[in-house]
Amino acid sequence: MATHSLFLLPGDGIGTEIMVEVEKLIAWTNSEGLTDFSLDRGLAGGSAYDAHQVAITEEDVVKAKAADAVIFGAVGGPKWDDVPYDQRPEAALLRLRKELAVFANLRPAICYPALAEASSLKRELVEGLDILIVRELTGGVYFGEPKTITDLGDGQKRAVDTQVYETYEIDRIARVAFDLARTRRNKVHSADKKNVMKSGVLWDEVVKGVGKDYPDVELHHILADNAAMQLVRTPKQFDVMVTDNLFGDILSDVAAMLTGSLGMLPSAALGAPDPVTGKRKAFYEPVHGSAPDIAGQGIANPIAMIASFAMALRYSFNMIELADRVEAAISAVLSDGLRTGDIAQDNRKTIGTEEMGAAILAKL
Amino acid sequence: MATHSLFLLPGDGIGTEIMVEVEKLIAWTNSEGLTDFSLDRGLAGGSAYDAHQVAITEEDVVKAKAADAVIFGAVGGPKWDDVPYDQRPEAALLRLRKELAVFANLRPAICYPALAEASSLKRELVEGLDILIVRELTGGVYFGEPKTITDLGDGQKRAVDTQVYETYEIDRIARVAFDLARTRRNKVHSADKKNVMKSGVLWDEVVKGVGKDYPDVELHHILADNAAMQLVRTPKQFDVMVTDNLFGDILSDVAAMLTGSLGMLPSAALGAPDPVTGKRKAFYEPVHGSAPDIAGQGIANPIAMIASFAMALRYSFNMIELADRVEAAISAVLSDGLRTGDIAQDNRKTIGTEEMGAAILAKL
Ligand SMILES: CC(C)[C@H](C(=O)O)[C@@H](O)C(=O)O
Ligand SMILES: CC(C)[C@H](C(=O)O)[C@@H](O)C(=O)O
Repeated sequence: MATHSLFLLPGDGIGTEIMVEVEKLIAWTNSEGLTDFSLDRGLAGGSAYDAHQVAITEEDVVKAKAADAVIFGAVGGPKWDDVPYDQRPEAALLRLRKELAVFANLRPAICYPALAEASSLKRELVEGLDILIVRELTGGVYFGEPKTITDLGDGQKRAVDTQVYETYEIDRIARVAFDLARTRRNKVHSADKKNVMKSGVLWDEVVKGVGKDYPDVELHHILADNAAMQLVRTPKQFDVMVTDNLFGDILSDVAAMLTGSLGMLPSAALGAPDPVTGKRKAFYEPVHGSAPDIAGQGIANPIAMIASFAMALRYSFNMIELADRVEAAISAVLSDGLRTGDIAQDNRKTIGTEEMGAAILAKL
Repeated sequence: MATHSLFLLPGDGIGTEIMVEVEKLIAWTNSEGLTDFSLDRGLAGGSAYDAHQVAITEEDVVKAKAADAVIFGAVGGPKWDDVPYDQRPEAALLRLRKELAVFANLRPAICYPALAEASSLKRELVEGLDILIVRELTGGVYFGEPKTITDLGDGQKRAVDTQVYETYEIDRIARVAFDLARTRRNKVHSADKKNVMKSGVLWDEVVKGVGKDYPDVELHHILADNAAMQLVRTPKQFDVMVTDNLFGDILSDVAAMLTGSLGMLPSAALGAPDPVTGKRKAFYEPVHGSAPDIAGQGIANPIAMIASFAMALRYSFNMIELADRVEAAISAVLSDGLRTGDIAQDNRKTIGTEEMGAAILAKL
C-alpha cells in the first residue's frame, strides 16, 4: 500500500481537542493495516500567532501544499480580536484555500434521524433532510482586488471590496455540482443575485451553459435571498445547491443549522485534478467553529471532525468502504443513545469528547 | 388640514390587486376627514416596460420625488425575463431607492400570534417574535462601481461588482438603528463579515463609534453568517439588527420567513430629514414579491400592503393613532378567523383579496 500523507492543523479552541480523537482513529486504522498514513502537524490561527506572530508560517503552508490531504480543526477566538488584520486567525484559512486552490467546497447538510428533534424546525420538515451545498471557495469578494480602506480626511473613510468572477471559475464549480447531483437526486439549484449583480448575471449564464452538458440533471435558478427563505420554509425541496463564495458562506450555515446537527457536519474543499497524476489537493474541516466558550472543558463534539476525516477517506483516498464504516460507527453510537452536550437529550447519556471518540472507535 | 401627496406605484402581478384595497382605504379615510391625501398613480416594472419600454419613466421618477410618500406594490415576473438588463422590473425599484435617497430600510419581522402555527419553526421559538431589521438601502454592492462584464476573448468573460461604503453612510444608518432600539428593547446587533471584508471592518468601526453616543443601548457585533444561523436557531434573542444592503436583503428574508407571516409584513424606506422642512422622503412596500403564479386570481393577501400604508401614516405623517387603528383592524380580522389562501388554516374561513380588504375596512 502506498503511503499517504496527512497534514493536521488542529487550530484553536476545541479544534485541538477534537483533532486528538481523529489522531486516535488514524493510529488505529494504521495499526490495523487499513491505512498507511504518514502524519505531520502544524499550527494555524491564534495558536500560530502566539508561537510565531503569523496566522500560519510559510513552512506550514509548504507542508499543506505537499500533503495528500489537509485535516483542519477550527480557528479563532476573542483572545486574538486585536491582532493585526492580516494575521487574524481566519487569514490562515483564507490563505490555505487560495494556495491549495481548493475551489470546490462541499458542505453536506444532513439531518441525523436521531437528532431531528434538536432542529428548531418542525420535525417533519427536516427529518431525512440531505442537502449538498457546493460553494465556490477561492474567488468572489473573498479575494477580489481592490480590497481597501482609504482615509478621505475629515473623519471620513471609504472601504471597498470587489467581487470578481471569471467564466472558467464558474464553469468548473458548476461541473462539480452537476457531477455530484448525478450521484444523488439529479437536481441542482444555482443561487445568485443576478437581478442586482453583474457577477450574478455571468454566474447564471455560465451555469446554464454547463447545464446543457447535463440534460439528465434538473437545473433551477434561484435568487440568493429567496434561497435563504426557501431553505427555512421547505428545505427538502433541495438536492444540490451551487453558489458563490459569499452566498455559500451564509446559505451553508442556514442549511447546517436547519439540521439540528451542526456539531455533526463535515466539509471538504477540493482542487482541480492534476493533469498528470489525477490527484487533487484537498482540505477537510468541520462546519462548526472553534467554540472558545467551551474550549478546554473536554465536552466538545468530535463527530464533525471525525466525519471530515471520513470525507477524506472517501474523496482523497478512494477508501469508500472504510469511509462507510466510520460513518456507520457514528450512526451506531448515536443509536445507542450517546450524546455530547451540544446534542444532549432527555433519556440519553451525555458524554465528553474523549468518551465519544472512544465509543466510535469501539464500534469499528 | 394640510394636503398630503401620495404617489402610488402598484407595479406588476398581485401588486395591482392589493393596491386597489389600499386605495379603498384611503378613499374612506379621506371621506371621513381623517386624512386629506391627494393621490397620483404611475407605472413601475414590467407594466411600465410594456407601456413605455422602460422600467420607470422619467416623469414618474419626478413625481415620486415630489410626493410626500411613495406607496409601492411589487414588480417582476417571468414575462419580463428577457427585457434588456437596464430595464428589468427590479431596475425601477433600485432607481427609486437611489433617487429618493431612502437609505434606511425598516423591515419588521413580527409573528402574529394567530399565525404562529404557520411558521416552519417550532411554535415556542417564534410566538411573540418581534425583530426589526434595519437595512442600508442605497449603498454597498447594489450601487458600487465598477459593475461590469468584460469579454476576455476565447469564450471567457470577467464580471465585477463593487461593494463601497463610506463612513457617513454607515454612521447615519447606525443612528437610525440605535434610535429605533430606544423605542423598543434597547438592543442592537450589527452584522457584517469583518473577518473577510474591508467594508465589514469599517462598518464595525463606525457602528461601535456611534454606539458610544447610545450608552443605554446594548450593542453586539455578529458575523453575517452566524446571524443567519442564529435567526434560525433562537430568533427571539434579537431586537434590532442593522446591516448592509446585501446582507440585509438575505437576513431580512430569513427573518420574514421565520414568522410564518410573509404575506403580512410591510416595510418602510426613509431618507434623511430635509434640513429646512424636516420632511424625509419615504417609500413603503410589502416585503413579499409580485407572486406571478397567483396574480389575477383575486386571492392575494392585501395585508402587507395595507400594513405598509399604516407605516406611512406612522412614519411620514405622524398619524400615530390612525396607524394604530389600521393595525388593530388587521389583528381583529385575523382574530375573527378570516384568512387569505397563503395563510389558510383548518377551521378558518378562506377569503379573497377584496373580501379581506373590505373586512379590514369594516373594522374601522
Ligand atoms: C472563518 C471564515 C473566514 C469562514 C468564511 O467566511 O468562509 C467561515 O465562516 C466558513 O464558512 O468557513
Ligand atoms: C427585487 C430586488 C432588487 C430587491 C433587492 O434585492 O433589494 C428585493 O429582493 C428586496 O429585498 O427588496
